[in-house]
Amino acid sequence: MEAQNDKKTNRTEISELGEFGIIDRLTKNFELRHASSLKGVGDDCAVIATGKGKAMLISTDLLIEGIHFDLSYHPLKHLGYKAVVASISDLYAMNARPSQITVSIAVSNRFSAEALDELYDGIWHACDYYEVDLIGGDTSASEKGLLISVTAIGEASQKQIVYRNGAKAGDQIIVSGDLGAAYLGLQLLEREKQIFLENPEVQPDLEQETYILRRQLKPEARKEIIDILGELKIKPHSMIDVSDGLSSDILQICTASGMGCRLQESGIPIAKETFERAVKFQIPPLTAALSGGEDYEILFTLSAQDTEKIIKNPLFSVIGEITAQKEGYNLISNSGQVHQLIAQGWNHLNPS
Amino acid sequence: MEAQNDKKTNRTEISELGEFGIIDRLTKNFELRHASSLKGVGDDCAVIATGKGKAMLISTDLLIEGIHFDLSYHPLKHLGYKAVVASISDLYAMNARPSQITVSIAVSNRFSAEALDELYDGIWHACDYYEVDLIGGDTSASEKGLLISVTAIGEASQKQIVYRNGAKAGDQIIVSGDLGAAYLGLQLLEREKQIFLENPEVQPDLEQETYILRRQLKPEARKEIIDILGELKIKPHSMIDVSDGLSSDILQICTASGMGCRLQESGIPIAKETFERAVKFQIPPLTAALSGGEDYEILFTLSAQDTEKIIKNPLFSVIGEITAQKEGYNLISNSGQVHQLIAQGWNHLNPS
Repeated sequence: MEAQNDKKTNRTEISELGEFGIIDRLTKNFELRHASSLKGVGDDCAVIATGKGKAMLISTDLLIEGIHFDLSYHPLKHLGYKAVVASISDLYAMNARPSQITVSIAVSNRFSAEALDELYDGIWHACDYYEVDLIGGDTSASEKGLLISVTAIGEASQKQIVYRNGAKAGDQIIVSGDLGAAYLGLQLLEREKQIFLENPEVQPDLEQETYILRRQLKPEARKEIIDILGELKIKPHSMIDVSDGLSSDILQICTASGMGCRLQESGIPIAKETFERAVKFQIPPLTAALSGGEDYEILFTLSAQDTEKIIKNPLFSVIGEITAQKEGYNLISNSGQVHQLIAQGWNHLNPS
Repeated sequence: MEAQNDKKTNRTEISELGEFGIIDRLTKNFELRHASSLKGVGDDCAVIATGKGKAMLISTDLLIEGIHFDLSYHPLKHLGYKAVVASISDLYAMNARPSQITVSIAVSNRFSAEALDELYDGIWHACDYYEVDLIGGDTSASEKGLLISVTAIGEASQKQIVYRNGAKAGDQIIVSGDLGAAYLGLQLLEREKQIFLENPEVQPDLEQETYILRRQLKPEARKEIIDILGELKIKPHSMIDVSDGLSSDILQICTASGMGCRLQESGIPIAKETFERAVKFQIPPLTAALSGGEDYEILFTLSAQDTEKIIKNPLFSVIGEITAQKEGYNLISNSGQVHQLIAQGWNHLNPS
């Protein structure tokens, strides 16, 4: 009658392995036996063949109170919206469109039905804007807090799907929008929470910072990119969304593709408001952009020729180049120094 | 900076609404906009058309420590197996086969990597036996305990899929296997836990009760039924799996179909071991069968003609008949008394 996990001998902490290490360890013995399982663990989505050159893409995300969100500053309506965005972003990140989601929640008795109405109002608005159908889910009690699990589903032609593992030497590395804003938004909210806890009389003046707050509390997914690429008849060689941080995510592309990279600091897009807030917090803006995460921008690699076609669109920035693997993972700073890139993005197995 | 759920005005407790009530309330404003969304919330699985008369079925289940399982007596390996079984059972319950699953877990730092190896060993064995591929998931920290979310996916021809809502007056109600065993297994484990907590020296003698323990700790899904029906060229009018308890699940079929039912106590299958343990615990065996849940048997309704074909197979029992809705939901006891059926199965929003 003893819990299996109480064995004290030969104990390996999950935090020693990290999120990707534990996934590799747990899934390494699993084989794909169905021909329809085109892609298993290891990309933004799993991919299942559905016949006639079509495929279904599926991605699932967990959001857990106290780990991924803090309800003392995250309105439930925005949280519902964000949960959908975080999940469907994985489909856009494979050049596909989401069409359905399932939402499962577990809630403690701290939550009223009215609180859940707010959460589902946000989910409704995201479904409306991104044109996805809520088709199922599960509802349960929890012993503590709120948990949200969203599975996003969409169909695409197999030819159209872009994986992480197709980057080629000489590819230009492109990112949409700008980076680091969601991270600075989180830092600002955490600071305001501390001020409030110490002195509830102080009214925060956050009007100058609506951009970074919005990027944290109610982000959007880049649903327009699949159309832009389609109109230009461009298919990226590799693609991922920036959810864990630029460093971590470009390293995912490089390791999956067996390639290296050379990023240019000068190319990395940072919004004015993000930059200014970083300076006020004495955080190097580049660090926020590299390690911030939760931006839900799209990162992809293109031939030089295709890069020419797309780069007129101000949505995109060229931030570097794919190299041979032996050249490593490098960032060239504005002063010309070469830094080695390390994945120091979000790691929700090591919440700090 | 105040949590939305702290509003004390106009607060409705989730427990007042129940699991099905809260799902109805939260999802009532959602519309299906994609023609491919054949079935949304309200059956064992969601169903998405994939072209050429085919469809993808998707079902998702949450299992939460302290709500759905107790690791003081549930070995992690069996738990992993059961999590897969509970999820894929929903596909068999629509006359479809599962082919893929995704597994997301959230774990506190109480769990070692070796503990998760055990969990995934059980998942592996279930994938092997049921021939499903693990194709994805998410891994996260949790503040407390273990959470497992399994999404099961399978493809079927649209014509073959059986929903809850097709029961017709005069249909015979059939159930596979036997009922109530998983519930008695749970009661036995809970009693042994209490004995152990009061006196750790007492060694339990559970050898006579392996059947009910296995039904609770390592249940199986009824993968053979789709083949049996296929060989006999029988398509049930309605179908569901017995996960919440026979009463609750037959009421799901009746309400979805706009029908009533008349169950016969004499027809309800209860294993000898289940019966004997129920008597020892002074629980009416019929109550365990009606309200137990977690049996993962398949409940379906057939025309009288098709019932003739299938009933030679000892796997199946005829337990009653579908009636007009106005006749209500009734159980005829062995003494001839008429009882009204109420859903008193598991309700994980009201853990007792």
